[in-house]
Amino acid sequence: MHFTSERRLDDGVLEREFILGEIPGILWTPEFAFTPAPLILVGHPGGLHMMYPRLAARARHAAAAGYAAATIELPGSGDRPRSSAAEQARADLRRALEAGEPVNDEIVDRLVLPLVDKAVPEWRAALDGLLALPDIRGPVGLSGGVIAIGIRLAVVEPRISAALLFAGSFVPRSMFDEARRVTIPLQVLLQWDDEGNDRQQALDLFDAFGSKEKTLHANMGGHTGVPQFEGDDGNRFFVRHLT
Amino acid sequence: MHFTSERRLDDGVLEREFILGEIPGILWTPEFAFTPAPLILVGHPGGLHMMYPRLAARARHAAAAGYAAATIELPGSGDRPRSSAAEQARADLRRALEAGEPVNDEIVDRLVLPLVDKAVPEWRAALDGLLALPDIRGPVGLSGGVIAIGIRLAVVEPRISAALLFAGSFVPRSMFDEARRVTIPLQVLLQWDDEGNDRQQALDLFDAFGSKEKTLHANMGGHTGVPQFEGDDGNRFFVRHLT
Repeated sequence: MHFTSERRLDDGVLEREFILGEIPGILWTPEFAFTPAPLILVGHPGGLHMMYPRLAARARHAAAAGYAAATIELPGSGDRPRSSAAEQARADLRRALEAGEPVNDEIVDRLVLPLVDKAVPEWRAALDGLLALPDIRGPVGLSGGVIAIGIRLAVVEPRISAALLFAGSFVPRSMFDEARRVTIPLQVLLQWDDEGNDRQQALDLFDAFGSKEKTLHANMGGHTGVPQFEGDDGNRFFVRHLT
Repeated sequence: MHFTSERRLDDGVLEREFILGEIPGILWTPEFAFTPAPLILVGHPGGLHMMYPRLAARARHAAAAGYAAATIELPGSGDRPRSSAAEQARADLRRALEAGEPVNDEIVDRLVLPLVDKAVPEWRAALDGLLALPDIRGPVGLSGGVIAIGIRLAVVEPRISAALLFAGSFVPRSMFDEARRVTIPLQVLLQWDDEGNDRQQALDLFDAFGSKEKTLHANMGGHTGVPQFEGDDGNRFFVRHLT
């Protein structure tokens, strides 16, 4: 992992771009912290450049509460090489959605399972690199992104102590068994009228999580309509569990 | 409405018992407020004496955030005269629950509808008296209690600007139509494994509310297991909507 750029944002946050092997990533740290900051991994659906404004806003919000935040590009997104199988699955999904058809399990499996298998080891490698930096420490929180990646990470990565998940993307049926094995504290966001997400499946997934401490926050509106106050609530969730 | 007792609690809260006609009630106000405090009506299932410790804790929590809080006894509870019809309905409900039978709509209607019809005008009369006091002002928030009373109050009482409802008691089917007419901001608490509350009905009720701004907070555990942090979250909900 090496840094490729560094700049100071106007609210006392240091933003550094890095490369981990061939994977680009961004790290935000509170510039004036006296002690190493606990880390929040900031998830996204893929495409760092396109997602940058929203990611940076979430990271700066976390930094204002004393957290470092970091993210890496997903396999097959942004400037990373495309996989023809993933592109085909994505096209099939788009076709089903545009035709107003139910999205069948086979498409979801084809789209999400290989993504989870590839992404999770990369996020764990990023954790190795990030936690080796002098200004970052555990425990680690996970915030948002492709929920299936979050589920797998919560199961396999013991350094992640709490997760704020967004029930806003497709979850392969086989991952409900993994959800039952999640035991860390969870806060799950659900947009009640999310265009691309089945409400009942999201409620079933929340029910399936094995965590004793889990909270569902359902709000009105579509996929991108998460209310601003959920940002503060997310910080408070991490304060409860990462300190 | 006249006060019958007054005492200062150790955290700067003034607690006054009052009588409104023949209905006992309690008012808590922040003692050192410089301006009139916005009011939160604190609901409960009936039985002021038995509920006092929890009610006082909620009221003091609200007072710490600058709110006045008040409650009155429900019809047929505490020291108020019993209604034989309500006692019969309560006994039938208990019998059904103890036998592990589904609680049929007829029992719920018999138990809840007369209670709502009697209680709602009383809470409105209490509002008249409370808002006439020099140290209390609107807007008014409603917090918890029998959810069917909360639904009716939210529909008919324009002085109530926001409601924090607890989906923890039976709701007559006919009140789903009233729920659709609620338009004030809502925060709805749901205990995922509430012994005395049907989860799917609670989710259907949340869906039915007509409010554009509504948030569901579902937490693990049974009826009395609402996590402490929901108290702070409730205050923040009222800060967003009563100021």
